[in-house]
Amino acid sequence: MHYLRDKRNYVVKLSPGEQVVASLMDLARGERLAGAEIRGIGAVNQARIGFFQPLERRYETRELHENLEVVSLLGSLAYGDQGPVVHLHVSLGRSDFSLIGGHLFEATVSVTLEVFVTPTSKRLERELDQRFDLHLLKLR
Amino acid sequence: MHYLRDKRNYVVKLSPGEQVVASLMDLARGERLAGAEIRGIGAVNQARIGFFQPLERRYETRELHENLEVVSLLGSLAYGDQGPVVHLHVSLGRSDFSLIGGHLFEATVSVTLEVFVTPTSKRLERELDQRFDLHLLKLR
Amino acid sequence: MHYLRDKRNYVVKLSPGEQVVASLMDLARGERLAGAEIRGIGAVNQARIGFFQPLERRYETRELHENLEVVSLLGSLAYGDQGPVVHLHVSLGRSDFSLIGGHLFEATVSVTLEVFVTPTSKRLERELDQRFDLHLLKLR
Repeated sequence: MHYLRDKRNYVVKLSPGEQVVASLMDLARGERLAGAEIRGIGAVNQARIGFFQPLERRYETRELHENLEVVSLLGSLAYGDQGPVVHLHVSLGRSDFSLIGGHLFEATVSVTLEVFVTPTSKRLERELDQRFDLHLLKLR
Repeated sequence: MHYLRDKRNYVVKLSPGEQVVASLMDLARGERLAGAEIRGIGAVNQARIGFFQPLERRYETRELHENLEVVSLLGSLAYGDQGPVVHLHVSLGRSDFSLIGGHLFEATVSVTLEVFVTPTSKRLERELDQRFDLHLLKLR
Repeated sequence: MHYLRDKRNYVVKLSPGEQVVASLMDLARGERLAGAEIRGIGAVNQARIGFFQPLERRYETRELHENLEVVSLLGSLAYGDQGPVVHLHVSLGRSDFSLIGGHLFEATVSVTLEVFVTPTSKRLERELDQRFDLHLLKLR
């Protein structure tokens, strides 16, 4: 992971073999971010994505092992009980140009991932919502 | 709708049963936003989306009643003759991980929707473009 | 192309017949942007999209000639050896509400394209990565 700090954003570049979610959590910890919004594009060759089933309160997951364009990567960084949580949704482009996507658990960069991370000035936190057994943003 | 105001953004959280477009219009009015850019992710269980047919100058619409991940939600807030207009395009993830989307008329939050709303410092306005019978951004 | 400059962003509106990538390169040159992040939505009626094959170090391309919603347009502006490079990924919505997408080579606006361009305060540069024969972000 390489990055520069701009007046507004961290401009982040991930390289082949790097993990998307783990790298952004490293950035959060290393730079002591209070919270952040995340936006990116690039390419990966492995991804685990999820679809949340509200009634069953769990994610269906799908593991992909193929070259994929990261057509959109959007989400946030906030803090739960156990440290930083990177919450990302992703749209992935396949070689036939169809798109597939959902919640992003983790992905491995194949070529590059270019990410803009905008720190928040206020701390963003998550707390357990027992209806869904998910940690949702805590905003009063 | 809960939100906090950050140095740059409103960080907005919508809860189950809340309407996406109507809530963001409430935010615009309540906070007297001059205009805004909107970006978000989350999950909905109802959505009405559109595809604009330029020759017929009307939207094809499709109503969805199922659990859907909001993979990307992007757009703007600007003012037309009748008050705030929230113009959003959306990519929605289905339980088979396929994506569907287009113009967003309205959607109902199922689990949560996390939205970053960046106010503009200048007023954003829309005006009727008679070629399409649509209110497009008014920029000179 | 019409635009206004806000405290944070250029708010850009492209009109029917205008080229997306070429217009944003014009903006970069005309406004002497050091670099930028780009986000947009709208509609096009022609697009050339790509899928990068890492092993073959080349893009598969697909040319589309139909009305398409631009559901998401995300990327950056940075400088290579030959001037500004606009690197965009796009998700396009078809009349059956399915989505298609990937790397965007170029597209022609049909109705409107609304783009937020956030200039960076530091110069963004690209350099050749010989592993892929691509110009990737240069961040040390």
